[in-house]
Amino acid sequence: MEVDTLPTSSKTMLNKFLSVRGLTEELCSPLLAEDYVVQPIADVSPPKWHLGHTTWFFEEFILSKQKKYKRFNDSFAFVFNSYYESVGEKIIRTNRGNLTRPVTSKVYEYRAYVNEHMFKLFNSSQLNEFEYLIEIGLNHEQQHQELLQMDIKYILGNNPLFPSYRQNPIEQTPESEDKSFLNIKEGVYTIGHSTDSFCYDNELNNHKTYIQNFEISNTLITNEEWIEFINDGGYKNFIHWHSEGWTWVNENKITAPLYWHKINNQWQNYTLSGLKPVNKKAPVNHISYYEAYAFAEWKKMRLPTEFEWEVASNKFTWGKAWEWTQSAYLPYPGFKKADGALGEYNGKFMVNQMVLRGASIATPKNHSRNTYRNFFHPHLRWMYSGLRLVK
Amino acid sequence: MEVDTLPTSSKTMLNKFLSVRGLTEELCSPLLAEDYVVQPIADVSPPKWHLGHTTWFFEEFILSKQKKYKRFNDSFAFVFNSYYESVGEKIIRTNRGNLTRPVTSKVYEYRAYVNEHMFKLFNSSQLNEFEYLIEIGLNHEQQHQELLQMDIKYILGNNPLFPSYRQNPIEQTPESEDKSFLNIKEGVYTIGHSTDSFCYDNELNNHKTYIQNFEISNTLITNEEWIEFINDGGYKNFIHWHSEGWTWVNENKITAPLYWHKINNQWQNYTLSGLKPVNKKAPVNHISYYEAYAFAEWKKMRLPTEFEWEVASNKFTWGKAWEWTQSAYLPYPGFKKADGALGEYNGKFMVNQMVLRGASIATPKNHSRNTYRNFFHPHLRWMYSGLRLVK
Amino acid sequence: MEVDTLPTSSKTMLNKFLSVRGLTEELCSPLLAEDYVVQPIADVSPPKWHLGHTTWFFEEFILSKQKKYKRFNDSFAFVFNSYYESVGEKIIRTNRGNLTRPVTSKVYEYRAYVNEHMFKLFNSSQLNEFEYLIEIGLNHEQQHQELLQMDIKYILGNNPLFPSYRQNPIEQTPESEDKSFLNIKEGVYTIGHSTDSFCYDNELNNHKTYIQNFEISNTLITNEEWIEFINDGGYKNFIHWHSEGWTWVNENKITAPLYWHKINNQWQNYTLSGLKPVNKKAPVNHISYYEAYAFAEWKKMRLPTEFEWEVASNKFTWGKAWEWTQSAYLPYPGFKKADGALGEYNGKFMVNQMVLRGASIATPKNHSRNTYRNFFHPHLRWMYSGLRLVK
Amino acid sequence: MEVDTLPTSSKTMLNKFLSVRGLTEELCSPLLAEDYVVQPIADVSPPKWHLGHTTWFFEEFILSKQKKYKRFNDSFAFVFNSYYESVGEKIIRTNRGNLTRPVTSKVYEYRAYVNEHMFKLFNSSQLNEFEYLIEIGLNHEQQHQELLQMDIKYILGNNPLFPSYRQNPIEQTPESEDKSFLNIKEGVYTIGHSTDSFCYDNELNNHKTYIQNFEISNTLITNEEWIEFINDGGYKNFIHWHSEGWTWVNENKITAPLYWHKINNQWQNYTLSGLKPVNKKAPVNHISYYEAYAFAEWKKMRLPTEFEWEVASNKFTWGKAWEWTQSAYLPYPGFKKADGALGEYNGKFMVNQMVLRGASIATPKNHSRNTYRNFFHPHLRWMYSGLRLVK
Repeated sequence: MEVDTLPTSSKTMLNKFLSVRGLTEELCSPLLAEDYVVQPIADVSPPKWHLGHTTWFFEEFILSKQKKYKRFNDSFAFVFNSYYESVGEKIIRTNRGNLTRPVTSKVYEYRAYVNEHMFKLFNSSQLNEFEYLIEIGLNHEQQHQELLQMDIKYILGNNPLFPSYRQNPIEQTPESEDKSFLNIKEGVYTIGHSTDSFCYDNELNNHKTYIQNFEISNTLITNEEWIEFINDGGYKNFIHWHSEGWTWVNENKITAPLYWHKINNQWQNYTLSGLKPVNKKAPVNHISYYEAYAFAEWKKMRLPTEFEWEVASNKFTWGKAWEWTQSAYLPYPGFKKADGALGEYNGKFMVNQMVLRGASIATPKNHSRNTYRNFFHPHLRWMYSGLRLVK
Repeated sequence: MEVDTLPTSSKTMLNKFLSVRGLTEELCSPLLAEDYVVQPIADVSPPKWHLGHTTWFFEEFILSKQKKYKRFNDSFAFVFNSYYESVGEKIIRTNRGNLTRPVTSKVYEYRAYVNEHMFKLFNSSQLNEFEYLIEIGLNHEQQHQELLQMDIKYILGNNPLFPSYRQNPIEQTPESEDKSFLNIKEGVYTIGHSTDSFCYDNELNNHKTYIQNFEISNTLITNEEWIEFINDGGYKNFIHWHSEGWTWVNENKITAPLYWHKINNQWQNYTLSGLKPVNKKAPVNHISYYEAYAFAEWKKMRLPTEFEWEVASNKFTWGKAWEWTQSAYLPYPGFKKADGALGEYNGKFMVNQMVLRGASIATPKNHSRNTYRNFFHPHLRWMYSGLRLVK
Repeated sequence: MEVDTLPTSSKTMLNKFLSVRGLTEELCSPLLAEDYVVQPIADVSPPKWHLGHTTWFFEEFILSKQKKYKRFNDSFAFVFNSYYESVGEKIIRTNRGNLTRPVTSKVYEYRAYVNEHMFKLFNSSQLNEFEYLIEIGLNHEQQHQELLQMDIKYILGNNPLFPSYRQNPIEQTPESEDKSFLNIKEGVYTIGHSTDSFCYDNELNNHKTYIQNFEISNTLITNEEWIEFINDGGYKNFIHWHSEGWTWVNENKITAPLYWHKINNQWQNYTLSGLKPVNKKAPVNHISYYEAYAFAEWKKMRLPTEFEWEVASNKFTWGKAWEWTQSAYLPYPGFKKADGALGEYNGKFMVNQMVLRGASIATPKNHSRNTYRNFFHPHLRWMYSGLRLVK
Repeated sequence: MEVDTLPTSSKTMLNKFLSVRGLTEELCSPLLAEDYVVQPIADVSPPKWHLGHTTWFFEEFILSKQKKYKRFNDSFAFVFNSYYESVGEKIIRTNRGNLTRPVTSKVYEYRAYVNEHMFKLFNSSQLNEFEYLIEIGLNHEQQHQELLQMDIKYILGNNPLFPSYRQNPIEQTPESEDKSFLNIKEGVYTIGHSTDSFCYDNELNNHKTYIQNFEISNTLITNEEWIEFINDGGYKNFIHWHSEGWTWVNENKITAPLYWHKINNQWQNYTLSGLKPVNKKAPVNHISYYEAYAFAEWKKMRLPTEFEWEVASNKFTWGKAWEWTQSAYLPYPGFKKADGALGEYNGKFMVNQMVLRGASIATPKNHSRNTYRNFFHPHLRWMYSGLRLVK
């Protein structure tokens, strides 16, 4: 490929393409062949599937629009489609972990094949018309990079041998000890993405909102504070919980964050470096919305709304864990879905989910901004999720 | 009871008490003995249970606080508690329909017994300290009057004999034909209850909010418009639906509003007067949030937020059907739960539910106001629920 | 009706008809209106349904075959069919308890109407051709009389008020104290119904079978022996149980027979006369096959086969409780299904069920014989079931 | 290892050990790394698990009884125990397919390690006392060789790419065209294992049974006959089915044997050599007991009992498919469980299952005899199961 002859903007995009596509494979490099295949719960996808699905996205929405392009394998569209109803049949989600074929090496071939055809596109006059879709495809793959790390952790962390994925337990970075509450004044504020840079449709429109006075903590809740909650019977007293949260706690016998194990009377947690004693100074991680809410009730405080969070976000450090807000995932005023299959990206999930703001240790660099709206169902906690309080 | 000697405010409250308690029994008067007992789905409670539960509320929160009061039957607290975790054990919800004892006549005796002791309270010096709780108890019973009518309709409407409950099919009142969209200007508006009169905790605090320009219909969507949606394949095209809505439609084989039956190629619906041809001019009723959303998408419009609804509500007629909004049920700024068991009234349900505004043909008189926040899970539709659009 | 003019055989049958039909209503006479309606688990049917279903049987298989007969209500065939696939649509079993209409008084009218038309038949020349079907209909109703008593016990016995159904707790009749084992010699024996009298198709053909030497107890296992099993950890040691039995015990947290409650450290059980201390000398009752098997294993003995039981049955007293055998419910050599809907009576249930022999305190007089094959799934225990051991 | 110095009987056993252990690995040799890991349904185990579990059996019941033996890895006992409740904790069955570690290469190391220690035992004076357990261990591994082939077929056959496992589609061997019914005379016959050679506990005691006259087909039902059944609406007419079979057909939308696909109006089936047109002359395979029974009913014949089958078995050829009998899996007279964990081998499964007799194309050589009792639940059909009729 003759990179030198490319115009600067194409070069920039190509470099981004190379970097994002490369990182996905780098994240998989510590895996053994067996780790690529399984799906222990419906929410978790096999790493092999992420490798294929992010590749299929470029094939389906970009390459296949070009007359001469020949798909790598016609059946892959079926195997690697995730939830796009507009684009033909798809494997039902709970079946992904039963597919031993195509094998992983074949999926890597698929990646190379699609990359190669993308390189041709970068060199062609057609690049312009696909720029926006490439941008989407790369952001999409970055989202899957975080999912990949969540899923790998779930697969290894639920194995009785607790295998290690990497040396450095980055989940254990301590939170600042210099704790205080920041005061934000009542008034009309502007919310949502406002620059020319890339954002998802759910960050638009940029719009005015009215916010009351509030005070927000400059630090995340730590494991130490969470242990106090546990020791004070937090998981055993319905008074702190939503009615559905209380049912969830009892049906699933929840007594601590995900990955925590009490061994010889000490709290250990599974990190990507294996089982380690819980670091009390690190932010609590892997909690559900139900737990975040119950903790806030116990503290007689509350979670911020996503608007409060966005308004205050430039006054504190964020990025160690996604932060639950008390905002439901709903459309902004003037929200518009894209036409066609890409319109299925966000809008159809805007019910029964809660917004998380910020970013986590698993979020790729260059994939975070203070208008980004992440969202999960209130009972889920395999993502890197923590909380910050408001009073 | 010597009513004449009561001070005026006590008399007013007593009259309200007599009127509310009487209406509950009046609503049950068309029922046959068998109708009082069953619970065809978990959401529906047996009429006998409503009669007992609304009575238990006065016994538990008012009468039992008085030293001399002797409970009618100690086991009733167990049988008729609904969801108050603070107040001892309770029958699990799905079991209510298996309890043939206490029989209905015994429950009516229970009502008379509690009424009698309440009369004594009205005559006593203690009335003052219980006034607020009586107000709550009466509002609580009015809520159950609407539930009672929903549940009776479900019980009779799912019987293959389609029995009639009353003469007049009030569901069939036509909507005005004079349709238009009302324009509301952008700006800061005040939302929530602001007068001295009774309201629930979830209507507070009264607070400012910023609203963008919008246009809202002065009429509800009619059955005629809904039939167009059906005929245009609305239930068969995923593009209009939330992802979870689409799953719901398919798993439950939904093809029309609840209680609709296509007989000899004509749409009939079960009304409280039995099976009747669908009145095309009447507002559509008994639809889920998923359906309301899909309809709005199909129309290329949207549902109002609950704030938009409240701001515009004095400009149109409402009250024929609860109106789905696109707002999730969340706390207002400054929301405070009451202490003790009454604190369980609203706050613990503020997750996974959507707000409906307005009132319906089954809402008791004097129990509606434009700040009232009703709420249900997005898949439910046995309540009298319709929709109004915004563009 | 002019009974005097009837021929003797018709009179005998008429008397049986009157007696059987009357007993069903007598069994219901202690019930209150509410008790007739509910269905707390899928296996239990509402008493109202039994009243209607046994009546429908005569209407469907006898009266409706006569040209002039006009059905009482056309929709009843739908409501009261149980499982006969040949005879049109039916209410699904789990829905029986949601039908408040037809009300019980209407079902009693239905019974009277069908009885009246049956009386006409007894007086007519057609009687002959229907004699066999009437015999079946009466035996069918007798089977439902036992089910009725099982279902009533379940409905009342799972009510927190433990209401009484009748004065005399017949479940508590003590077993003889004169315990011994009877010796039966090896050889070829004949099994199955062999006389002209009525039997079900599953008791045929009468056929030879080879039986090895065995010794069978002359008494049933008593509550006292069962308490020893409990106290020895019988419910907590997998070694005694089938693999599926062990799963059943753990998933359902089974620790004692159905209807037993440990109150103030004493075993009480619900009888049709209310809650009573367990009578240690009475036979154990309301146990599943899994429990019967586990008990036998614990005793280092075994259950008899149904053939052993039949061969030995004239040497001991039976009739207090149905006795689990270790025989699966399978066809006898030469088994033939009847033509038409009556062919659905027995054959289609011959899989996954175990045979019980004998009779119980709830079995109608004149409805027991030592060739009778009762059958239930191995986890069920709301019938009057006990056990006798073999070594 | 000095084989030459071994006594003859030890050499024979060693050779058998080498041959059986080798075959398991040979059966896995066509698999790719990913195929070893998954568990698409609870009944199917990952090939990796079979490799480990059959090895664990020798470690647990033989090697670990020797003082000096050091386990390969202490956690493997937990990972590879199947259902032996006596031997500590075990991984729940539905979780086997989520374990990516230990990886397959580690499991092969485990096999080598255990083999090596077994070789030492063959050379030692202790061999005598373990001979019976080795025999059991080898038979156990042979059983798993058949399960392995069933599970591999399920894993590959439910993959949308239909990968091939081996060249020769042995499922397609035609049945003889020379069809006739063999006549067996009424009388007392002896059933069960009677020689000194190895058998399972469930084949004992050898005992007398009485058998009526019957005629049994010398051939298995073919695919051609099964297609007639399908074309005659066999799957759509309840009259042929058990009540529970009919529910199974409808809930699972069963319309043909497992692995059959109608493509361009022609029946194809997945074989271990990939998707092939159904061979009409080959015996039907992969049917449930419910289907076998329904087919027999449709033919107005029946399945043999397991006793009839055993008595007639030397008069026809068998071994292409396991043959459903109409016998439930129950203990023979005098059946005794072994002491300790091996007592869990068979007895605890003797409820809710049906007996199959014969052997299949997947049964290892030297692992079939006409007294062998195979058993499965009536709805299962991933084994190589067919049927033979009796009239």
